[in-house]
Formats: sequence, C-alpha cells, structure tokens
Amino acid sequence: MNWHIANPNTGQAMSDLLVTTLTHRFPALDIEVTTSPCGPASLEGHADEALAVPGLLTRIIEAEHHHPGCRGHVIACFGDPGIAAAREVARRPVIGMAEAAMASARLIGERFSIITTLARTVPLARRLVREYGHAQHCGGIHASGINVLDLDSDSAFQRVLEDSEQLLSADQSDVLILGCAGMAPWAPGLQERLGRPVVDGVSAGLQLLVHLDQLDLSPAKQHDRALPIDKPVIGPHSHLYARLHEDTRS
Amino acid sequence: MNWHIANPNTGQAMSDLLVTTLTHRFPALDIEVTTSPCGPASLEGHADEALAVPGLLTRIIEAEHHHPGCRGHVIACFGDPGIAAAREVARRPVIGMAEAAMASARLIGERFSIITTLARTVPLARRLVREYGHAQHCGGIHASGINVLDLDSDSAFQRVLEDSEQLLSADQSDVLILGCAGMAPWAPGLQERLGRPVVDGVSAGLQLLVHLDQLDLSPAKQHDRALPIDKPVIGPHSHLYARLHEDTRS
Amino acid sequence: MNWHIANPNTGQAMSDLLVTTLTHRFPALDIEVTTSPCGPASLEGHADEALAVPGLLTRIIEAEHHHPGCRGHVIACFGDPGIAAAREVARRPVIGMAEAAMASARLIGERFSIITTLARTVPLARRLVREYGHAQHCGGIHASGINVLDLDSDSAFQRVLEDSEQLLSADQSDVLILGCAGMAPWAPGLQERLGRPVVDGVSAGLQLLVHLDQLDLSPAKQHDRALPIDKPVIGPHSHLYARLHEDTRS
Amino acid sequence: MNWHIANPNTGQAMSDLLVTTLTHRFPALDIEVTTSPCGPASLEGHADEALAVPGLLTRIIEAEHHHPGCRGHVIACFGDPGIAAAREVARRPVIGMAEAAMASARLIGERFSIITTLARTVPLARRLVREYGHAQHCGGIHASGINVLDLDSDSAFQRVLEDSEQLLSADQSDVLILGCAGMAPWAPGLQERLGRPVVDGVSAGLQLLVHLDQLDLSPAKQHDRALPIDKPVIGPHSHLYARLHEDTRS
Amino acid sequence: MNWHIANPNTGQAMSDLLVTTLTHRFPALDIEVTTSPCGPASLEGHADEALAVPGLLTRIIEAEHHHPGCRGHVIACFGDPGIAAAREVARRPVIGMAEAAMASARLIGERFSIITTLARTVPLARRLVREYGHAQHCGGIHASGINVLDLDSDSAFQRVLEDSEQLLSADQSDVLILGCAGMAPWAPGLQERLGRPVVDGVSAGLQLLVHLDQLDLSPAKQHDRALPIDKPVIGPHSHLYARLHEDTRS
Amino acid sequence: MNWHIANPNTGQAMSDLLVTTLTHRFPALDIEVTTSPCGPASLEGHADEALAVPGLLTRIIEAEHHHPGCRGHVIACFGDPGIAAAREVARRPVIGMAEAAMASARLIGERFSIITTLARTVPLARRLVREYGHAQHCGGIHASGINVLDLDSDSAFQRVLEDSEQLLSADQSDVLILGCAGMAPWAPGLQERLGRPVVDGVSAGLQLLVHLDQLDLSPAKQHDRALPIDKPVIGPHSHLYARLHEDTRS
Repeated sequence: MNWHIANPNTGQAMSDLLVTTLTHRFPALDIEVTTSPCGPASLEGHADEALAVPGLLTRIIEAEHHHPGCRGHVIACFGDPGIAAAREVARRPVIGMAEAAMASARLIGERFSIITTLARTVPLARRLVREYGHAQHCGGIHASGINVLDLDSDSAFQRVLEDSEQLLSADQSDVLILGCAGMAPWAPGLQERLGRPVVDGVSAGLQLLVHLDQLDLSPAKQHDRALPIDKPVIGPHSHLYARLHEDTRS
Repeated sequence: MNWHIANPNTGQAMSDLLVTTLTHRFPALDIEVTTSPCGPASLEGHADEALAVPGLLTRIIEAEHHHPGCRGHVIACFGDPGIAAAREVARRPVIGMAEAAMASARLIGERFSIITTLARTVPLARRLVREYGHAQHCGGIHASGINVLDLDSDSAFQRVLEDSEQLLSADQSDVLILGCAGMAPWAPGLQERLGRPVVDGVSAGLQLLVHLDQLDLSPAKQHDRALPIDKPVIGPHSHLYARLHEDTRS
Repeated sequence: MNWHIANPNTGQAMSDLLVTTLTHRFPALDIEVTTSPCGPASLEGHADEALAVPGLLTRIIEAEHHHPGCRGHVIACFGDPGIAAAREVARRPVIGMAEAAMASARLIGERFSIITTLARTVPLARRLVREYGHAQHCGGIHASGINVLDLDSDSAFQRVLEDSEQLLSADQSDVLILGCAGMAPWAPGLQERLGRPVVDGVSAGLQLLVHLDQLDLSPAKQHDRALPIDKPVIGPHSHLYARLHEDTRS
Repeated sequence: MNWHIANPNTGQAMSDLLVTTLTHRFPALDIEVTTSPCGPASLEGHADEALAVPGLLTRIIEAEHHHPGCRGHVIACFGDPGIAAAREVARRPVIGMAEAAMASARLIGERFSIITTLARTVPLARRLVREYGHAQHCGGIHASGINVLDLDSDSAFQRVLEDSEQLLSADQSDVLILGCAGMAPWAPGLQERLGRPVVDGVSAGLQLLVHLDQLDLSPAKQHDRALPIDKPVIGPHSHLYARLHEDTRS
Repeated sequence: MNWHIANPNTGQAMSDLLVTTLTHRFPALDIEVTTSPCGPASLEGHADEALAVPGLLTRIIEAEHHHPGCRGHVIACFGDPGIAAAREVARRPVIGMAEAAMASARLIGERFSIITTLARTVPLARRLVREYGHAQHCGGIHASGINVLDLDSDSAFQRVLEDSEQLLSADQSDVLILGCAGMAPWAPGLQERLGRPVVDGVSAGLQLLVHLDQLDLSPAKQHDRALPIDKPVIGPHSHLYARLHEDTRS
Repeated sequence: MNWHIANPNTGQAMSDLLVTTLTHRFPALDIEVTTSPCGPASLEGHADEALAVPGLLTRIIEAEHHHPGCRGHVIACFGDPGIAAAREVARRPVIGMAEAAMASARLIGERFSIITTLARTVPLARRLVREYGHAQHCGGIHASGINVLDLDSDSAFQRVLEDSEQLLSADQSDVLILGCAGMAPWAPGLQERLGRPVVDGVSAGLQLLVHLDQLDLSPAKQHDRALPIDKPVIGPHSHLYARLHEDTRS
C-alpha cells in the first residue's frame, strides 16, 4: 500500500465502491481503501463524524505502522472529518476530499458550486468553504435531497445531473464539486453530459498526495500538527497513542 | 441536576476542581460535573479532542436521559471540542467555554487577549476566534507554556499573572480570557491583581445557559442541529443513537 | 432599581409596554424602565438616534447617580443607539438589544434572520450585523413595512408571523430576531406559532446583564471605554460630565 | 456660502484655525466654517461625539435653510461623528474628514498610517478603517499622546514629525493621515519634511465636495439616507425636523 | 495638456467620444485623450487588457515626457487595466475609472450596483470590487449583454435604462455605476430618468485628479510604486524604461 | 513537449536554470521551458510584469499551436503575471507558481511564510495572498533584499537560510515558500537545513498540472475564462488572436 484512502464510515459498500472506482481510474497506483472499524454506517452530520473519527485515526495509525511504504492518506468523506486530528497522528500527508476538491476546482475555474446529499450537510460544507478560504469563489451549495445510502441508482444520477445544470447556471459557476464520496463514480459521466469540469474530491485528494510526494514535501510536525503528547487514554482507544509513540521510539 | 458541566477529558482531578470552583461561586445552582468515560486525561490538541468527543456525547445524552430537569450543557474545555456534534444530540442548549468566554468578553471590552497552556493550543484558539466572528476584536493569543496538568500550583498562577500584565498592555486589550478550564479558579484573583476583567469560560458558559433558560430559548433542532439520523453504529458507541431516538419516541 | 432598561425614545407608551412585558416575564428582577427626557417619539433612522442619544446618556448617568444598586443598563432600541458613548459614561455594563439578540441567537442556531419595522432601518441592521461579527451567520434582514408606532395591533402580529415563516425558510435560518423593542411582547407567541426560537433583544439584554453580574464582570474602563475627559460642555447637556466626575471624586 | 465646514465641537479656536487654514489654501472657494452651538469644547471620545451631533445637525440644516447656494458639508472631526445622521438631514453631500482622508490616501499609495491625538481615539479610528473598507491597506494607527487643545505648539509639530518618520517606516506605509482637524495646518510642512504624501482630511473633504459638485452628483435620498420622518421631538432640538420638512414643503 | 485621459484600447471612436463628452462637460479643463498605439480595438477580457497595457504605459510615459504640465492620468476602461504598472511609471497620479466610480459612489449612497457590457466582464468587476474594499457595499454587478462597440445607439441606452431601474430596486442599491467608458455620455440622461445618482468613472477619475492636485498630493514613489528598475528590455517596448530614467536624470 | 514552463522574462539564464532544475528533479516528465520573446530581463515590479505578459501569452499560444500534446502551462514567476489573461488564451490549464506554492503549503502546514527578493515585491505578494484566499494562513512576507539576477551565489543561499530560520520562528509558521523562480534550485537544500517543508512554486505548479491531467480536469472556458473575442489588434501582437481562432476553426 502506497496510498491510503480512509473511508471513515463503517459501510463496506462505500469502500468497495471506492476500490472499484479508484483502481479503474488510476491502475498504476498501489491504493488501499480501509473501512473504519467503528462508528456509523454513513456520515451525514456532526455527530456521525465525531463518532467516526477515532476509528479513522486508528486506520491512519495502522496504515503507517504496518505499511512503511504508505505515502499518505485521503479522508474519503466530504466533511473532512477529523482532518486536524489525523494530521497530528500521521507522519505522512493527510488530505480531506473537500479540501482537495476545492483546491482543484480553483485551478480550473473562477467559481465553483457544490452539490451534496441531504440538506443537513449544507451548513457543514458552508463552514469548510469559509475555513479553506474560498468564500469569495463559491457560487452556491445545494442539497440534492438524496441520502448517502441511496446514491447508487440511475435515478439519483439523473436527478443530480438535472439539478447541476440549473444550479451552475443560476450560480454563474464554472465548476461542479461532488459533495459526497458516494458520488465519486459519477464524475466522468457528469462532466461529459454537463460540458463543464466536475471534481470528485476523493480522486483529487489521491492525486494531491502524489503531487506532494513528487515534490518531496512532508508535513510540518510542529505547532498543532505535532504528534499528540503521550498521555493516559482510557477506553476503547487506549492503545492508540502508545502505538504511535512506540513507532517513534523504534 | 439542572446544569451539566461536561468535562470532556478523563481526568477526575479537573472535574473535582470544577465542582469546587463552581459550587462555591454559584451556590444556588444545581450543578453536576461529569467526567468523560473514555479518552485522554487532558486535551491539548486535535487528536486529544477527537478521542474525547464520543465520551462527551455519551455524557450529554445520559444527562438528558437520566435527568429530565437538565436545562443545558457546558463543554468545559477551551477548544470547545465536539460542540457541533453535541448540539445535534442534545435537545437542550450546549455552550462551549471558549464561545462563552469570547461572547462575554465582547460585552465588557473592545478587545480581548487569550492566555492558553501549551503553544500547540494557540492555532486551535486562533481558529475558534475566526469561527466565532471575533477576529477583529482579538488582540492576541499567547501560550503560557504550562501543561494543563501542571496548572495547579502557585508558581503557575504567578507566571500567568506576570505574563498577562505584559500581554494585555502590548495587545492594547481590555479583557483577559483564560484559555483552559484548569485556570477557572484563578479568575477572581487575577481580576483583582490585574485590575481588568478576567473571563473564565466555564463560569461564563454556565451563566449563559441560565440566560437562555430565563429567556425560554431552546435550540433550533433543524438543519445541522437536527437529531442525528438513526442508523447502524458499530463499536463501543453503538448504543448512542438508539438511546437518543428511544427518548424521542417515548 | 437594579436593572435599568433605557428606552431611548420619548414615547411613554413604549416604556409602559416594556414595563408590562418585562415585569411579567421576570417578576423576580428589580427593573426600572426610563424614558428619554428629550428626542424623537420613536427611532427609525440615524438622525432619530442621534437626537435621542444625549437623553439616553442623561438617563444612564442619573441611574448610576441616584441608584447605587444599579447593576447595568440595556439600550432598548434595535439600532443600539449611542452604545459606545453609553459605555464611556457608565461604570456598569451597557448592552444593546441588537447586540444581545444576535449573541443569544448564535448560541441556539447556526443562522438567524432579522425582521424590522420600516425598510429604512434595514441598512442600520446590516451595519450592526457586520460590526458585531455575525455577517457569516445572518441569513437575511427584512422589513415588515410596519411603523414602530403601529406595531400594537393584532394585524401587525399576524403579518409578522406570516412574513417570518416565509423568510426563515427562504433564508435557511434557524432563529428569528425581532428587530424592534416594540415587538418584545410578541416573542413567546411567535415562538410558539413558528416552532422556532424567537429572540427579543430587550429580554436578552436584560438577562445578559444578570449574566455579567453573576460572573462579577465589570466593564473595562480604559481605551475608548474610559470615562469622558472632564471638559467644558455648552448647552442643554452642560451638566453631564460635571455630574459624572463629581461621582468619581466622591 | 458654497461650502460648509462644520466644526462639530464648540471650540471657536478650532473653527478660527480652520478658517485661516482653508481660506489661505483655497482662496477661490466660498467657504464658511461653523461652530457647533452646543456640546463639548473638543471631541476625544464617543460621548463627546454623541453630545456634539445634535448641534452638528442643527448647523447642517441651518446651512441649507439659510444658504440656498450651499453645495455640501464637511464634518471637520476625524471620528466623522454623526455622519449617517447628517446624511439623512442634508439634501447636499456630507463628507467626513476621516472618510475623505482615507479615500484620498488610497489613490496615492498602497498603505497608509494614521496619527491621532490621545490613545483613547485609536479604537475609534480602527472602527472607521474597517467600516470604510480599508482594513487591508492600513499599516497602523498611532496616538501621539497630544491633547487636541495642546496641538497648537511647535513642540507638538516636532513630536508628530519625529513619530511619523518612525511609524511610516515600521508600518511600511506610503502615506500619512493626520487624525485630527487641529493638525490641518501641518500638512504641507510635514509633507515637505517627511518627503511623503500627508493627508489632511478637512481639505480632502472640502475638495471631494467640489469633486461631487463638478460631477453633478447629489446624494441618494432613500433607504437610510431619506429625510427623517416628521415626528414629534421633545426638548432642545424639537424644532429641527419641523424646519427640515418646512423646507421640503416650500 | 494638464489632464491625460488614457484610452487603453486602439479604437479611435472611443477616444473621440471621450473628447466630446469631457470637453463639453468640463470646458475649463485642459484635457487630452490619447489612444493606445497598440493592442485590441476594445477591451472585454483579461487578454484584451494585457495586450493593451504596454501601449497604455507608453502613452503615460509620453504624456509626462512631452507635457511637463501634465497633472495626472485617468485609465479610461472599467477594468482599470494596468493600474499598478501605470503607477510605477508615472510620477503624477494615476486613477482608474472603476476605482474612481466606486470611491465616488460610496460618498453619495450606502450601496451601489454596476452595469457592464458583456457577461464575461462581470467577474473582472467582481474582483475590483473586492480589491478596492467595497464588497460590503456592492449590491450587484450585472451585464447588459451589449458589446462595447455597439453601445452607441438609442436602443442600447433604452435597454440599459430599463435594466437599471429593475436592478437598482432588486439590489436595494442607491447609486448606479456605469461599467464601461463607452457609457460615459449616458450619465446625465440616465440620472435624470432614474432619479438616482449615476456615476461615470471617467468623469469621476478626471475630477479626482483635480481633487488631488488641489490638495497638492503627489503619489508615493516607493515600495511597489517606485519607478521600475532600469534594466534591459527586449522587443517593441525596449525604449520605455530608458526614456523614463532619462527623464529622471535630466 | 507535454509540460510547458513559461519563463515570462527574457533572461535566458533563468530558463536554463529551470531546465536544469526541473529535468533533474522530474526526469520522467517531458518538460519544455520557454523564454519570453520580449520584455524585461527580470520581473521585479508591476511594470516589468505588464511588459512581460504579451510575450508570455505568445509563448502559451505557440505551445498549444505547435505541440498538440501540450498538457498545460506553469507561469514561472512568483507574481503570477498575466495569469487571468493566460487562462483566457489557453485551452489547457495554466497555473501560477505563487498560486501553486500557496495551495501546496496549505496542505502540509497551518501557516506559511514567504521570502522574496527585493522589498518592492512584498506588496505584490501581499495582494496575491489575499486574492488566493490565504490571508488567515500567511504568517509573513519578507524581502531578502537580493536582486533576482544576484540569486545565483552561495552567499545568497546562506543569507536566505539564516533569514528563513528567524522569520519562520517569529511568524510561528510551519512552511517556507520561496518567492522567486530563481530560488527553485534551493528548495531541497533549504528544506534539509531548516528541517521544515520548503516549497518551490515552479515545481509545485508543474506537479499540479500533472495532478489536473490525472484527474482529466480541463479548464472551464466560459465567463472570464472564455477565449478572447476575435477582434482587430494593432501592433506587435496583432497576429495573436487570429492564430488562436484559427486553431479553433481547424
């Protein structure tokens, strides 16, 4: 494994979808998709994300522990859950799919719009747009009203296609960002039909890892990105920091 | 219990400190301080916070489940860990101590400065200042260099006092915010010595809960504050949503 | 008098309305509502506010002079007229009703919308939203088209109720803020009908004073909040600073 | 009178200074400097400004009432006190000296610094810089520590000269803005000695009035700039709106 | 020539239009309008602007070289092409027509709207609004859909008139800004028909030059406004810096 | 040629340096570095950039015309001169080295600092930081005081190394960005000595092109990125648009 795609939910179907999509799209890359060992089956809100993060951290630490060749991690959920925490525990780069999608969109258009799943995820995306500094370049954030677990259907694709045509025009936007990892397979098809660039953040995150690797850029490990201090941790993740610092000592 | 102070770390000493401080300061209030059942002994970074949040959510759900009289929750850690998630699972108001401290400071001064523990927490506070909309009114954020677990000493108090005098003057700030729950007991003493308002966010958060209660204001439970969708959750917190929705049905 | 509600206009009817509303809502608090001794009968613009402020400052200084037990002041007009000046002359906290409403709304929802009286007050509210740092969280500001002096009718309530339902939905907002002191009595009724939190800033300001008092937080009296310099003042308010500094000397 | 310079304080010496300075500098313009009929002798804080504004509004209304040829008004105090209110009551343009200074400075340099009188005026200037949209181009705001009434001395000039040299360099600023009407006479001398552009806002405001006049641009009189609604006003300024609307009817 | 209006495109018709408009509007001013010696016939995009700028710089340098009495330059194209470069090569003030229009609009209204030519110029105007610090005061930017070269017709005027009425109302804007030099002749007529202030940036830029001149304010010539370093330049503009520095030496 | 590195100045030495650096660093990529056919020998200001852009556009158009395999363009100058214009004329992605450096730095650290050449370039970099949305994450921008053409020396390297150590610490920054293409060869050496990530924007831009290519993302060609309108162009670049549209037709 060189490239670790961390699916932070516990839905194996999503991981399988990502394996299929990414290995087909990037056959030369040694990719592994992990599924979170604990937490919700899909992430559609702050609490879902919060419950998912410890499992995500576990998978990231394991990936670096068991695979010395691991070159970096993508968080394959549009809310970029736990990204700051993941950056503390990882020695290699960690990239969020929302972050990757927005950074990539800005390179190919002046304004982007985002289409997400349920309306409740819109405020989460709004916050990320601000945090990543793209507020001036975001034309709009729109919910398709489709549940993550219902994305896998032709009618869902058709609905997102129709919505996207309208919203890109109304927002005067150049680029469409797919606001859910489950939409990753749609990017080429939507792009062809819409005649506009369509960004899937999982692919974008993966390629940004390759980018950093080519540049020989490793993350700063200081300030709020330094390894967590080794301290007593109670409960199901009590082993996490110990393993982390064990790696450091060895 | 009317007022729930959720200590999101697993350090019982911090909880005891808060009980002593708050019951002495607000004897008329029926306060309960809970300690997180799992996670790190102290929170000094993003990963610490991430591991702490599931335990925090548990305590919040339990508080509302077991104490129908529970009027609200304070997150007693300056990073306001898990605040958005807590607002999803709680029916009653949730207030973060950083949020409360900054909102209160703005009412009594034009500019505030923050003193935190370790340097690694400074970027976390910087992010909160931006998120809460106070960037124009924050004179500076400074690390005392003192570890959370070492706060309980006279020399620590003395050092923070001296640092604060200097930084308030250099920042042209009117108000000092204490950037750690462990500094809560110091507020009156520092305020007297400095001759300037000093805000402890735990006390501020508690009183803002009372404030909301007096106004009969309950949280909006929609958009990204609606209850989490009831879905399968794997692992140590698999019961959480079930209990939450059970409450709803009953 | 412990809590001073300063109605900055000269309309006695508004003061009576506030007395009735607040004493009914907060029977345990020793509240006094004062009416400005000079200025316009209602405040619906910048000039109205400017003419009202000297009278407001007079009432604030008198309240502290004659009532040593005075714990703080609310400016009961949504434009928060003269708030900075009031903070210079007062030794106790001064809170504006717009400031209080917005700070409270942010604790219980991600986005708020404001409903005001006449269209000419919308730009004033827009400016306050920016100044207080809430631009990212304000869904919209809307005029009901109702004159302050015409608020006291069932049809006015009905109209605001209908408008509010629509605008909250269009703005994707969680909380409604009432943009006029004259709407204060409506808060509970609107909240019940809308099924969303509705914030009256006068009540919110009053409770924030209690909040600061419980925290033993007095305002910073330095920089632009220091007492005005004692200097010659000509005309109707020539006595104001003298009285203020007399209090200081005694 | 074509051009009305409204000195909003009651210090006749300041008005005399402005008459001398402006008539010498712009001999072709028919200028009148008025002194406020009521309020403080100098303006060095929010309360000073608030007490000064009704007198300022009076002078502005009188100027348009008695002088049909009046082409516009400058508020000759760096805090731009009452500018929004003045814009409501005036039919002709009103320009604040701070607003004029900053707008002019931006045309001749990338960054400006401001030197004011007492430290307590610094937060006022900071707020204006934000409000007028120049936060990204303001290198710094500095107090000279000199009281308005003590500006008229060689040592004051010398001190400001020395301070300015240092602060322009430290701020990497291109332009110096004089943060008090009382510094107006210094602009040419300072500019010569510093070798950098130095902006006096009173002169700048006057010339911006000429600018608008040449362009035949009259103020929008709608939204929050419409004439105040004619309504009962109690006390010393009870006549103000009546006169204003009398003008309208005639 | 005292006042240099630099038409940065190579369309002589536009220059003629500006001569006619400006000399009629400001008969007392000694104005010269130059046409760029090279570049596109009209400027409707970034590349158009980029190709136009070297010719613009040439005209600016020539104006100062041949006309010692030249007091300043207006860039007569709404994108303010090359303004930063022009400010390096010029010793006298340079003002962009968009910059001038926005600064003037802010003096007479709280919010402005812009009407431009083709839709492709809207993002350019959006960027300028941000850069000049007016984002909070811009109600909207709208394309009329009319090509620059087709502006000279009654139907074009009529269409812009109708669009403007609608958009000012929808944007809640007080002032209309004409987003193309070719609309300059329309300002008085539109203003009369709309009953709202209408700003032509070429006239505004010209009068702001007069304004600076009256104030004896010359541009800072340091930091990024210092003369370009004299260095080898290859190609059609190889003589430009040499001439510039020759002027300096002499 | 797959990857076009456009050196926008006419200094062949800089191009040679980039060829050496990039082919050594990325031997598998088919890179071509072009030198601008006209303009200044180095770019250290706005006018330098303005004179360079037409040559840059020429090289970009030629690259796509003569090399159907051309996959994209990097503008190898830290000011990102002409980036918006280049994006209009290019059908393939164009990336600026400053844009690339900042986007990459944000992926591996919370805050970055920039070191440039001469002080006059600092305001240019400041503007880019704002435009690209990174103002909240830029710790500082610093001039080394070294002229572009003097970069090629051991003493220059040593001086930048020493400066960088200091400024990263003072700015509390995690990442160093090299603010000049001429510093490209230093990145690995500085990174090793500083123990912190050091970003060369030319390499970063090149790899971001690869990134976009892997994602099959082509630029939006609409709004302000649509091909320039085919119109008469006078002078040395009169052929540019014709060639461009000839390509379209064929």
